[in-house]
Amino acid sequence: MRRVEKTELNAASIQELQNIAGEMREEILRTVSANGGHLSSNLGTVELTIALHRVFSFPKDKIIFDVGHQCYTHKLLSERASVFHTLRKSGGISGFPKRSESEYDAFDTGHAGTAISAALGIAKARDLKGENFEVIALVGDGSFHNGLIYEALNNLRGLNTRILILLNDNGLSISPTHGGMHDALEGFKAGEGDLRLFEQYGVKYLGGCDGNDFTSLLPALEEAKECLKTQSVLLHVVTKKGKGYAFAEESPTQTHGVAAGGTQEKKEYGAALGEELMRLAKGDGRIAVVTAAMTDALGLRPFFEAFPERSFDAGICEEHASIFAAGLAAGGYKPYYAIYSTFLQRAFDEIVHDICAQNLPVTLCIDRAGAVGEDGQTHQGVFDLSYLSLIPNLTIGIPADISQFRAMLELSAKYDAPFAIRYPRLGTEGRKRAVEIGKFEILHSTMSDITILAAGERCVRIAEEGVKQARACGADATLINACFVKPLDEELLSTLKSKYILTMEDGALIGGLGDAVRRFYKESGKTVLSLGYPDAFVPHGDISSQLKGAGLTAEHAAELVVKYARG
Amino acid sequence: MRRVEKTELNAASIQELQNIAGEMREEILRTVSANGGHLSSNLGTVELTIALHRVFSFPKDKIIFDVGHQCYTHKLLSERASVFHTLRKSGGISGFPKRSESEYDAFDTGHAGTAISAALGIAKARDLKGENFEVIALVGDGSFHNGLIYEALNNLRGLNTRILILLNDNGLSISPTHGGMHDALEGFKAGEGDLRLFEQYGVKYLGGCDGNDFTSLLPALEEAKECLKTQSVLLHVVTKKGKGYAFAEESPTQTHGVAAGGTQEKKEYGAALGEELMRLAKGDGRIAVVTAAMTDALGLRPFFEAFPERSFDAGICEEHASIFAAGLAAGGYKPYYAIYSTFLQRAFDEIVHDICAQNLPVTLCIDRAGAVGEDGQTHQGVFDLSYLSLIPNLTIGIPADISQFRAMLELSAKYDAPFAIRYPRLGTEGRKRAVEIGKFEILHSTMSDITILAAGERCVRIAEEGVKQARACGADATLINACFVKPLDEELLSTLKSKYILTMEDGALIGGLGDAVRRFYKESGKTVLSLGYPDAFVPHGDISSQLKGAGLTAEHAAELVVKYARG
Repeated sequence: MRRVEKTELNAASIQELQNIAGEMREEILRTVSANGGHLSSNLGTVELTIALHRVFSFPKDKIIFDVGHQCYTHKLLSERASVFHTLRKSGGISGFPKRSESEYDAFDTGHAGTAISAALGIAKARDLKGENFEVIALVGDGSFHNGLIYEALNNLRGLNTRILILLNDNGLSISPTHGGMHDALEGFKAGEGDLRLFEQYGVKYLGGCDGNDFTSLLPALEEAKECLKTQSVLLHVVTKKGKGYAFAEESPTQTHGVAAGGTQEKKEYGAALGEELMRLAKGDGRIAVVTAAMTDALGLRPFFEAFPERSFDAGICEEHASIFAAGLAAGGYKPYYAIYSTFLQRAFDEIVHDICAQNLPVTLCIDRAGAVGEDGQTHQGVFDLSYLSLIPNLTIGIPADISQFRAMLELSAKYDAPFAIRYPRLGTEGRKRAVEIGKFEILHSTMSDITILAAGERCVRIAEEGVKQARACGADATLINACFVKPLDEELLSTLKSKYILTMEDGALIGGLGDAVRRFYKESGKTVLSLGYPDAFVPHGDISSQLKGAGLTAEHAAELVVKYARG
Repeated sequence: MRRVEKTELNAASIQELQNIAGEMREEILRTVSANGGHLSSNLGTVELTIALHRVFSFPKDKIIFDVGHQCYTHKLLSERASVFHTLRKSGGISGFPKRSESEYDAFDTGHAGTAISAALGIAKARDLKGENFEVIALVGDGSFHNGLIYEALNNLRGLNTRILILLNDNGLSISPTHGGMHDALEGFKAGEGDLRLFEQYGVKYLGGCDGNDFTSLLPALEEAKECLKTQSVLLHVVTKKGKGYAFAEESPTQTHGVAAGGTQEKKEYGAALGEELMRLAKGDGRIAVVTAAMTDALGLRPFFEAFPERSFDAGICEEHASIFAAGLAAGGYKPYYAIYSTFLQRAFDEIVHDICAQNLPVTLCIDRAGAVGEDGQTHQGVFDLSYLSLIPNLTIGIPADISQFRAMLELSAKYDAPFAIRYPRLGTEGRKRAVEIGKFEILHSTMSDITILAAGERCVRIAEEGVKQARACGADATLINACFVKPLDEELLSTLKSKYILTMEDGALIGGLGDAVRRFYKESGKTVLSLGYPDAFVPHGDISSQLKGAGLTAEHAAELVVKYARG
């Protein structure tokens, strides 16, 4: 769409601003319908972002979008209107703020709760340099569950600096928010809140403007800007998620993240997670489920409805949720902690220190593992095998299909120690079979001098296709479903005769399956080659191009088989 | 010392309780003087722990000690009086709570802020099972900086359970606490506080008892126990850190952790950190320092005094501190974030997502890396090489002595990307020399068929001694100081002629230097053997026995050199 210049915003009447908001909303709807993306959060913040661009001067002033998924209107207003149709596409603009993309993006975000900390750092650097600009952190109320916010607020007063915090209150994170802070915010809106809650942090509270109404927003932002001259300010802005699009207004959790069309023929692992845990929980009263504000996306809504007393949504609190699960386990329960791979990074220390050091039977159900596609760099699930493999006492399973995933869930229910199962969003059901801890599955056995160890559904499918292609060229390979990265199937590995081993994993090359297999074979004389993500962040784009970037294609696997099949 | 039974506590007069407290205090002083340990925090909580054992019934009731360093009186009162003299010794009892040690220890701790989350998990499991006991979280005011506390409190009300939170307020974490929550607590003590701060979380606040006075403590705990019948309670207990030992009362930060005698002839890396950053900061106005409540222990007090405006102690907030440092870097500063290795685990996601994904020039100064000795399992710095190696854009240096550490700090000041330097507490100065990113140092060159790549001061010294011993047996090895784990010195590695490579690292075998070298040599036909910590948590004891457990001894190195020197 056309670029709306700041001069136009500054001169516009309220009616003209509303027209601009309409244009933006239309462009966002059109683009997200085609490319996928975050719909309801962006529809909800159109007026707020326009008003910010009118009242403040970017890029001189800096704005940090917490999580960053609500930055579309900002991108439209800052140099990227003409390329907005490339949103989330390979080589196109990112769906999240990116300093590398524009100087209007002050700080990259993706995970929740970072904006106030980053704003304080940028503001303090400004003060030290004697520069003069404003620093704004736009934070959704869901992030106010996250401990980072309180760490930053506790630190704020002592820093003797000034920032503007915009609390974007839509009463929802990805799942509806609840808990102490949510209730306090509701109290504020009802006029019963206690402003000292923020004042103890040295922040002036300015309350309750309508973030979808310019006549309320503009004076509130001007007042905040004025107050900001002497101290930090929190402006409480109430917005409607999905604003201006009836379906999104009514179904904000369904329209939080919208996928582009065409991939729905596969089944969600999450649906199987819900089904299996329901089945297991019927027969085992110890089974409980913990999530961090992702109940629906993880497939757990039916479980939450069937077993409300054993269902725990901790809010966007990956660390607390991990320790809470460990506490349930210490109390004799069998918790399943379901979470996206990228967000589990938040709980690394808690997995080490609270779950695995005590060898507590918490099962981590790690969704969106491997390449995630369009959400890109901050959301890739490519590090989990590496940062989990190094943790003692942890078993790590990677099912090759949904059927094997079900079998692993069943296995974990009887297993009295930490267990992690990682899987992509979509997969195929596959055939039913039993699974044993640390036992691989031979899919195709040959006398070839190369054996492929493929981990996870994507890699197993690519390897199968690669071996097929190689056979057409007269070469062959033994193919093994390496469904446990830890422990390895050492018994099977000891019997392999081939000189070359090719590992394939939908994860980082450093610290994952390839390294583990190479470590096992260190004195064997075998050559272990590995396919996986090289040592770089994986940008947004479609999953197949991300896999291709890691050499994870059937063609590449076939090529290697042909090269090494005869020693 | 003798075991004081609960019957004795229950029957004791105030004077007799004071006498028991005196006995405990004497035993703690005697044991910590001999074995090292946490002195002031334990002296401060003697009366509180005795009173808890009188009012509650352990192990039926459960108590979770946040951080856990203040559990000595609890250990004396629960089955471990007769073995208390083995505190922190190899094979002796741990200085932290350990479920494996006694059923009186309800949950293992070591890192700050976990107790409320764990208590909620245990309490909820109790409710679900219909059991009847109390769950107590004893939390120091320093932990109230940590975001985990707020995540847990936000979650508390919705959980519909009951726990007792004891806020142990001594006005100090490891460094003096400050910030929003601290000021609020001071307000409570002055009678100006706002109780709704906790009531918004659904917690009843009971204020201000003297935690070193049984006449104040006992009725306060009885009242808390009564209130606990209907809802969660926070009892605010004011204690004096170091109570009963004049030097510790006056110098609580010096006596927070006390080392056993005999190791002080070496120099602290931390002292060199302070010296070098002072020197660099004089010539470079961009240099700033960030810590998470560990200013003194990290050697940074002189820097904080010389450059207060560029010094930031964020409190026990490892995550926030990381993002704040990233914000400073985005604002044009050159922050050095100093922290213990074990605590940096807390910030794994922030290093990935906020520092390295944006390639921001934050330098991580990682103290207490490798084996830490008596603090044991929860404090070992053995995972850092593994969880840092997998992060793109990060350079990882491991100096072989303090002089090389100084050179790395100087190098990092000119380096415009993330840089991590990890080192143990103590070392030797060594000779001055330059250092280049990713360049190893050849210490001893031979035609032997084995080359040792040793990383870090401990391993380099052990390897040197091992090669010396091997030479006495007629064998020799090339010895290289592998002072960068990332990037490797690929140029040098490419020229090595020996068939056997032995890596030595004071870190976990999975994911560290050995794996990296093996990955590099994957198609070379070389055999890469590795010494480091096997896949298990490393228990407390002295450092030399921990190194020995990993095979990191001169004798073992010599043996391998003799075995492989002639191919």
